[in-house]
Amino acid sequence: MKIDGIDYRTIWLRDDGAAVQIIDQTRLPHELIIADLVDVHDFERAIRTMQVRGAPLIGVTAAYGLAMALRADAGDEHLARACETLLSARPTAVNLGWAVGRVRETVAGLPPHARAEAALALAHEICEDDVRNCARIGEHGREVIASLARAGDGPVNVLTHCNAGWLATVDWGTALAPVFKAHDAGLDVHVWVDETRPRNQGALTAWELNAHDVPHTVIVDNAGGHLMQHGLVDVCFVGTDRTTGSGDVCNKIGTYLKALAARDNNVPFYVCAPSSSIDFALDDGIGGVPIEQRDDEEVTFVHGRDPRGAPGSVAPYAPGSPVRNDAFDVTPARLVTGLVTERGIAAANRDALEALFPERRRQ
Amino acid sequence: MKIDGIDYRTIWLRDDGAAVQIIDQTRLPHELIIADLVDVHDFERAIRTMQVRGAPLIGVTAAYGLAMALRADAGDEHLARACETLLSARPTAVNLGWAVGRVRETVAGLPPHARAEAALALAHEICEDDVRNCARIGEHGREVIASLARAGDGPVNVLTHCNAGWLATVDWGTALAPVFKAHDAGLDVHVWVDETRPRNQGALTAWELNAHDVPHTVIVDNAGGHLMQHGLVDVCFVGTDRTTGSGDVCNKIGTYLKALAARDNNVPFYVCAPSSSIDFALDDGIGGVPIEQRDDEEVTFVHGRDPRGAPGSVAPYAPGSPVRNDAFDVTPARLVTGLVTERGIAAANRDALEALFPERRRQ
Repeated sequence: MKIDGIDYRTIWLRDDGAAVQIIDQTRLPHELIIADLVDVHDFERAIRTMQVRGAPLIGVTAAYGLAMALRADAGDEHLARACETLLSARPTAVNLGWAVGRVRETVAGLPPHARAEAALALAHEICEDDVRNCARIGEHGREVIASLARAGDGPVNVLTHCNAGWLATVDWGTALAPVFKAHDAGLDVHVWVDETRPRNQGALTAWELNAHDVPHTVIVDNAGGHLMQHGLVDVCFVGTDRTTGSGDVCNKIGTYLKALAARDNNVPFYVCAPSSSIDFALDDGIGGVPIEQRDDEEVTFVHGRDPRGAPGSVAPYAPGSPVRNDAFDVTPARLVTGLVTERGIAAANRDALEALFPERRRQ
Repeated sequence: MKIDGIDYRTIWLRDDGAAVQIIDQTRLPHELIIADLVDVHDFERAIRTMQVRGAPLIGVTAAYGLAMALRADAGDEHLARACETLLSARPTAVNLGWAVGRVRETVAGLPPHARAEAALALAHEICEDDVRNCARIGEHGREVIASLARAGDGPVNVLTHCNAGWLATVDWGTALAPVFKAHDAGLDVHVWVDETRPRNQGALTAWELNAHDVPHTVIVDNAGGHLMQHGLVDVCFVGTDRTTGSGDVCNKIGTYLKALAARDNNVPFYVCAPSSSIDFALDDGIGGVPIEQRDDEEVTFVHGRDPRGAPGSVAPYAPGSPVRNDAFDVTPARLVTGLVTERGIAAANRDALEALFPERRRQ
């Protein structure tokens, strides 16, 4: 997407082919810094320290990392060690294992001299697949916005939670892809950006929208229900970390509260779910998806820039109070208007999902 | 309530009678500072700068301020000027106007030499009335907690939003009064404390509970629905800024989202509403209560202590994104299990409220 009028992705091969470049997301939203990744340890560190984040982007980064590692030494031993290094970066990231496994499988049967080139070609393919899937999600979601625009006056007001924008993918994003597609098609769209405590990923969403010139307004997580009561939200689009085959959606903590408010106010609630996020084997989201509990300090310390512009953090709390920090919640399928996939919009139930993805039907 | 085992109120006459003392709430939760108020301008500043906050406490502070002003000069002109000074501190605070008006009316008919004493007696009376009403709310709410304790194992888990604790009143609080009463009666009670962005009043709630040794855990505003889905919340108690005669509740932004989650998970949702907060003339909360929009900086800057313990603030956002900051929302009566008043618990509808408060029946 655009930053100050210039097209960017989150990751790309440098012009001379000697390095992969990324937007260092640890510096956002305050600074736009491009980092070069050359050595496999650069890639491992980029994933581990969240210079790149978002499941799709982590997978793509790992694939490029393995390709660059094989360029340095394509022997079996180095291949095995490079895979191990990359997999250790974020042990629980599903896309990381999937991407490393896919590249490794492809090159293992090739003679060493052909491996680097094949790995790079596959990394490019994984990367382009992600862009294409996100773009399709955006096009399907754009139709929702277009039909709301035809039905009403003034801008279509979208509410989103967390950051499921292009920074979490290679380009377009998932939840924000419909917004970018609608804006680029000349539709009048405005986004309410939930700040998304504790990690304030709303700051990334606001930065993306600002950089691409999409009208938007930051609100605290408490505000969405009130805005819906007053007719100020036309539609919600959120992302998903894991979707069950029955349409339950595990996403950033707080998503469920917005879905409840949407239902109470007849606001359509869409979840942008690339098929890679759908776990067809699973039915019960609330009982079946383990919810990660993260570090207390995400709650007790807020990070940002101090009034002089220097990086800093403050604790709003006095010491002595325990904290609990669940990272995700589950929105039951009954609250979801539709799942926006790369193949179209499915109702949030198994029949509809299996009709769109028959090859993944549960045996 | 207790701070480190010692009983405190938020306001009291100093032992020598020459000053009124308050807990300076601008220094909480990081420091416990007692401030002396002598001159009427001390009282005005304490209200304006939110050294004291919460509608009931503001009223009591103003009453004491007028009494102290009359001690210095009980003439008509000084009485009028002191009233004006106090009323200017927070022009929209209902209790402020009510308390100043009540004291003024009482002393106006008296000879100047009798005014200061009468005003002080009335300030004491307003103060004690507030303590008694909060205590009664606490006792009625304690019965709810006691019956949940009898019905289940382990602690009764209460969720609260914002700070409707003793710091917002003279003692006991409103939403926290049932918790303090239950804890003091030996019931096993634990409180989930919503942080309550943007102003993080949860830090005050956590401080109160910590100081009184009540088990509690701080959570982000996004987390409550998830905890309810997993059976970790037994009951909600919140305060109210204004309650309609039909039982709609205007309270801190985000209250509505918690009420929705409570309904979706069969968790009882109680609002602690002193009758002074009930506007019997009003029916429709969503249409009828104007919602204050506050300064953007409450959202864009987070205040607290930096890692070295010094006061500081940080902005999590990059410049360039607009902000909207609604201070309150309205929870419709249909989501409220009961209104806990000083006269008992009423269902959230006009008939039930008028049965408890027949003298306030709409003409």
